[in-house]
Amino acid sequence: MSHRIRVAIAGYGNLGRGVESALAQNPDMQLVGVFSRRDPASVTLLDSSIPVYSMADIEQYQDEVDVMILCGGSRSDLPEQGPYLAKFFHTVDSFDTHAKVPEYYEALDQSARESGRVAMLSVGWDPGLFSLNRLFGEAILPEGETYTFWGKGLSQGHSDAVRRVAGVKSGVQYTLPSEEAIARVRSGERPELTTREKHKRECYIVLEEGADADTVRESIVTMPDYFADYDTTVHFIDADTFVKEHSSMPHGGFVIRSGNTGTDSIQTIEYSLALGSNPEFTASVLVAYARAVHRLAHLNDIGAKTVFDIAPGLLSPKSPAQLRKELL
Amino acid sequence: MSHRIRVAIAGYGNLGRGVESALAQNPDMQLVGVFSRRDPASVTLLDSSIPVYSMADIEQYQDEVDVMILCGGSRSDLPEQGPYLAKFFHTVDSFDTHAKVPEYYEALDQSARESGRVAMLSVGWDPGLFSLNRLFGEAILPEGETYTFWGKGLSQGHSDAVRRVAGVKSGVQYTLPSEEAIARVRSGERPELTTREKHKRECYIVLEEGADADTVRESIVTMPDYFADYDTTVHFIDADTFVKEHSSMPHGGFVIRSGNTGTDSIQTIEYSLALGSNPEFTASVLVAYARAVHRLAHLNDIGAKTVFDIAPGLLSPKSPAQLRKELL
Repeated sequence: MSHRIRVAIAGYGNLGRGVESALAQNPDMQLVGVFSRRDPASVTLLDSSIPVYSMADIEQYQDEVDVMILCGGSRSDLPEQGPYLAKFFHTVDSFDTHAKVPEYYEALDQSARESGRVAMLSVGWDPGLFSLNRLFGEAILPEGETYTFWGKGLSQGHSDAVRRVAGVKSGVQYTLPSEEAIARVRSGERPELTTREKHKRECYIVLEEGADADTVRESIVTMPDYFADYDTTVHFIDADTFVKEHSSMPHGGFVIRSGNTGTDSIQTIEYSLALGSNPEFTASVLVAYARAVHRLAHLNDIGAKTVFDIAPGLLSPKSPAQLRKELL
Repeated sequence: MSHRIRVAIAGYGNLGRGVESALAQNPDMQLVGVFSRRDPASVTLLDSSIPVYSMADIEQYQDEVDVMILCGGSRSDLPEQGPYLAKFFHTVDSFDTHAKVPEYYEALDQSARESGRVAMLSVGWDPGLFSLNRLFGEAILPEGETYTFWGKGLSQGHSDAVRRVAGVKSGVQYTLPSEEAIARVRSGERPELTTREKHKRECYIVLEEGADADTVRESIVTMPDYFADYDTTVHFIDADTFVKEHSSMPHGGFVIRSGNTGTDSIQTIEYSLALGSNPEFTASVLVAYARAVHRLAHLNDIGAKTVFDIAPGLLSPKSPAQLRKELL
């Protein structure tokens, strides 16, 4: 690399902070600025020497940024920010509303092609690395089934639901993959499993003073949509334990392809992630793909891109010859 | 695809037979012929309607084959056949002598560029899918360590060594990953492990009549280079059990990247294969990459290629829009 890749961050929450950390682990890149809709003076970065700018001024910085990493949410931020920012920057985002990918792709692609930019969407682990493994699995073992399990992971939506129960002071919910279901998939029997059969739910609750544990447990495990149809365990803990043991954001999961070849050989491909911090890992994937976006931009290979379009070698700071020698 | 991809096989052993089976699972491809150095009349395919030709005549078929899958061995066949066949065909092979990859790449690249062909090398699972996961691991988690474990798998070299021991009628050797070593890696402690610490060896032996089990066991477990430095278990079984339970060629292994992000989040990426048949699985990977080679040929993206150069979407028979909708 003749010069370091100049990266900026649009949106500074957990994911943006993760991107800041990840960039510091990659010496061929540098963070040149953070853009926020909040008052810049109120945004505190890990590295206070990095400037924070107002999102309203972002267009002015198009010559100073090689790749813009979009760290907004998929529901309301990205559908608007993605196509807008692709007019001025090469971008990468973690859009994760699976059902709306085709529509978002089209909007991004149109904007990026008009401006001659690369706009990469849906980068992270699911969508992202899990998507890649679903593709590899079915391309290599066309006769087979693909299974995706999530967890152990903190579920934001279910944690919110638990906290709305009367008597709950604080609470979190973890989704866990069912060990029995995974064992059946690994055996090669190719069971038909619903999402419900594949997962269990576990809650850690701090009660309000005077609240009755049995009543709270009953309210949780019978809650329709969220818990009623699952095997749910509720643990009651004190406030100190809650802060100490349940403040991080772990996640992970499995993609397993179970197939057969020849006459009756059972073949199993398994990909799994055990993540101490979900936003920091997603950020690390975004940063590796930002490197690929920068290289595509140099090749003038413009338009919207997904992980399916990226040759893996483009993710590494190493040269193709070095990769062949060291990693093949 | 307007017409099916016409594929031929050069070399018909276990791997070639696996490719024949794998092609039958992919309706967008067809096997148009097998080339062998043996007398074609003596080569029996799974599908007797497929023609077998003499390897000596292979140049005559260059207009009838879209992709040639090379199924010869890495030691003596491929170093010669690869560059030669790249003069006439788009090729894909499973060259697996890691140390000689750079040299073989150069020879292939020169031949393929002169003829305007695509020549893809080192496709399979290691090198191949494991290589990809080593690359993804270090690109996404630059602060970390990568661990490769092999097994449970039949080792040809060690099985040959066992069979040379006096008193052994038949025998096989399996390499097993050490569960303790894997557990340490998964914990995130990033241990320093030698290949020896990472693996155990297990032998299944049928004794010759009158041979003494203890003497045979002692000869095996103390054999220098092969077994002396490993934790080796020897099982004695009868000839029927041997044929029933030890005639397949299982293999597999693990690539684990253990890294950290942010201040102290431990992140683990694990990729594993449990293969009922090693040659059939390698063949299935070769066939998926043959599809990519055919597409690169259409794009006139010529020269030697490795798995690092191939955008994953090129492996699938599905269109990019279908992949985004169904798998992202």
